[in-house]
Amino acid sequence: AEDEDYEQIEDFLEEMHPQEIAHLLESLPSSDRQVVWEHVPADSEGEILVHLADDVRSAIMDRMDTDQLVAATESLDTDDLADLLPEMPRDIVQEILLSMEQQERERLRSVLSYSEDSAGGLMDLDMITVRADTNLDVVLRYLRRRGSIPESTDSLFVVDREGRFQGLLPLTVILTSDPEMSVAEVMEHDVIGIPVDMSARDVANLFERRDLITAPVIAEDGQLMGRITIDDVVDVIREEADHSLMSMAGLNEEEDMFAPVLTSTRRRSVWLAINLLTALLAAWVIGLFEATIEQLVALAVLMPVVASMGGIAGSQTLTLVIRGMALGKINPTNARTIFRKELGVGIWNGLIWAIVIASVAGFWFNSVKLSIIIAAAILINLIMAAISGAVIPLILKRMGGDPALSGSVILTTVTDVVGFFAFLGLATLFLI
Amino acid sequence: AEDEDYEQIEDFLEEMHPQEIAHLLESLPSSDRQVVWEHVPADSEGEILVHLADDVRSAIMDRMDTDQLVAATESLDTDDLADLLPEMPRDIVQEILLSMEQQERERLRSVLSYSEDSAGGLMDLDMITVRADTNLDVVLRYLRRRGSIPESTDSLFVVDREGRFQGLLPLTVILTSDPEMSVAEVMEHDVIGIPVDMSARDVANLFERRDLITAPVIAEDGQLMGRITIDDVVDVIREEADHSLMSMAGLNEEEDMFAPVLTSTRRRSVWLAINLLTALLAAWVIGLFEATIEQLVALAVLMPVVASMGGIAGSQTLTLVIRGMALGKINPTNARTIFRKELGVGIWNGLIWAIVIASVAGFWFNSVKLSIIIAAAILINLIMAAISGAVIPLILKRMGGDPALSGSVILTTVTDVVGFFAFLGLATLFLI
Repeated sequence: AEDEDYEQIEDFLEEMHPQEIAHLLESLPSSDRQVVWEHVPADSEGEILVHLADDVRSAIMDRMDTDQLVAATESLDTDDLADLLPEMPRDIVQEILLSMEQQERERLRSVLSYSEDSAGGLMDLDMITVRADTNLDVVLRYLRRRGSIPESTDSLFVVDREGRFQGLLPLTVILTSDPEMSVAEVMEHDVIGIPVDMSARDVANLFERRDLITAPVIAEDGQLMGRITIDDVVDVIREEADHSLMSMAGLNEEEDMFAPVLTSTRRRSVWLAINLLTALLAAWVIGLFEATIEQLVALAVLMPVVASMGGIAGSQTLTLVIRGMALGKINPTNARTIFRKELGVGIWNGLIWAIVIASVAGFWFNSVKLSIIIAAAILINLIMAAISGAVIPLILKRMGGDPALSGSVILTTVTDVVGFFAFLGLATLFLI
Repeated sequence: AEDEDYEQIEDFLEEMHPQEIAHLLESLPSSDRQVVWEHVPADSEGEILVHLADDVRSAIMDRMDTDQLVAATESLDTDDLADLLPEMPRDIVQEILLSMEQQERERLRSVLSYSEDSAGGLMDLDMITVRADTNLDVVLRYLRRRGSIPESTDSLFVVDREGRFQGLLPLTVILTSDPEMSVAEVMEHDVIGIPVDMSARDVANLFERRDLITAPVIAEDGQLMGRITIDDVVDVIREEADHSLMSMAGLNEEEDMFAPVLTSTRRRSVWLAINLLTALLAAWVIGLFEATIEQLVALAVLMPVVASMGGIAGSQTLTLVIRGMALGKINPTNARTIFRKELGVGIWNGLIWAIVIASVAGFWFNSVKLSIIIAAAILINLIMAAISGAVIPLILKRMGGDPALSGSVILTTVTDVVGFFAFLGLATLFLI
């Protein structure tokens, strides 16, 4: 009966696309994962590995022996192989390289020389090139003889004798044009070649804004290097988005949801440690005013309100600016306008909430003086929050940091410290 | 000289893709936007409008007269038109409908009847269908006579006499097969048709996991309704990701970065108001313990540390669960495993940070009792944070709410209230 169960699992997996199996594996607790992996179709293993999150992948690869790993990589495209190799043990990489043909090995080396986050790292070498002086009927006969066309192909690439990129020949053009015409007559000339060192993010923005399906990657001397296809770009867009969301909470998007408790505890500790330092800084500021609080405990009751309103307002500005930067919508030309606008919003929100909170505090503690002081503190903190929310990501980016990762910690440190300092400081000056 | 400048702008815009112009307009302060809009190529106006964020679009459409609006919509695909119409004044919609041919109008009505967030709302009606019993050379002749193929086409759709979907005929197959063969012999049979009511998010996941470029949309009776293309799916993925990021800060992803200060102030006020209520709830909890704080001001100094550590730890679990749910990786089967794991992380982190913070507090205020009490409060709050972070999004989703939008407010309310209550309550019981 157990054998029958396994057969059912295998039939089920046989129907699935490698990326779907990767998704399934990521959704399974680690104990079930190994069971499913053992029944995965052998010829999909490589592609599944490529699509797994780093964490899950390395756990599975750790249990594979050399032969299995070499076999899994055999069916992979050069660009996918280039993603996997850096995560394999040295001796296995050697073995894989030795098992390849000379030409294939050269190609792999060229892809490996580019960063994973660049056009060169994204590109795929599997493409069909034609010459401009060929006639379409020759192209048609060539394709029929070839018998297959690489996946996600919507265009052939036109190159000259030296391999320099000349233009695109869309499949739709081949199908709708007179076969007597030459490639030169019907090809698209005004095609943007993607420079091999363009960042993956810029490549994604280009694909998104031009509705591209494939695009040529070009070296500085005009040589056609490879092509980028939309499926890899979709992965970049998804990863970028995941990265922003996860890193704002100090998490890594490659983390396994089912990682062992102690592994996750250790990883998250870093973030908690950083936040503890900022919380202690805020506590130290409060400590400066112990004597004041002792005389008026209402201050202790209200101070978190001042800090939290600043944190919330600031994180709105911060999120807006981080997203604008990621989408390439904020640039040196309009940064000043954004800053002025956010400052304006900060001042208005500061005024509105100063009045609201002052009224609440005044009624609650029956003190006009207290309500004036909290109003002033709220106004100061919301203005500081707007300024910090707009400026912190710009500074972090100029310093080469990741605004999404550290922006929110720095921001809440500022709004906590400023909030407590303004509120308790003003109270010390004018209330006691 | 000014005319020359304008000519330069026009030349520049002429080179750009409509989506790039939309992006440019969104990156411009509102004053410059109108100037650029006036020099946009007339035949791109419709497509630019489709790609603008809601806010920016409606500002521009408000300044267009009926003739301009009708002209702008003329070149649009049915699916794009269906996105624009609901935002236009009733009389203009009438005019546009009247200017269309009967058949076109019917098609538009059918697209308008589906939700924007479903396969039906995403689909495009512009596609080429063929019969299974046709020979490929007939298909080739037909395509040549037709002279053009709709954008983003990688396959023709095979239907029977009643218009029911039979399979796909990829362009690459047409190009590589013997023209004497029939469509039936070479077409792909095992193609998943997308049900017309599938959610846009599920469509995006399907495209992503199967590396699709186009896919057929099918009615319940098997009728081919339209096709979905990868460029629209990329927009869905981007919008989904933007939505998660923005709504976690109470922002709307369709908002204009350069909206007038007062408009933005008003919109953000809602979020600040909700957060003020939760901050006041936390303040009320502190107020319950005024007498305790009066006797021991150290409590006021340390209480934000307890609350903020809970908030940070909880938001890590929350973000992980929200993302897992959005990617379809968390389901009823594995939710319990995730919960147990997060609880485990919460307990461990609670223990670790309880010890660290107790040591700091003990040294700072030279009190063993205080350090034991803060340790207990940290442990309680970090465990509650893990439970809330895992459970809140699941409950919100079951109630039909948006976990990304309200999850973090509810979470920090819980961690603030529990944190203050545990710390000040324990202090009242055991310290005073």
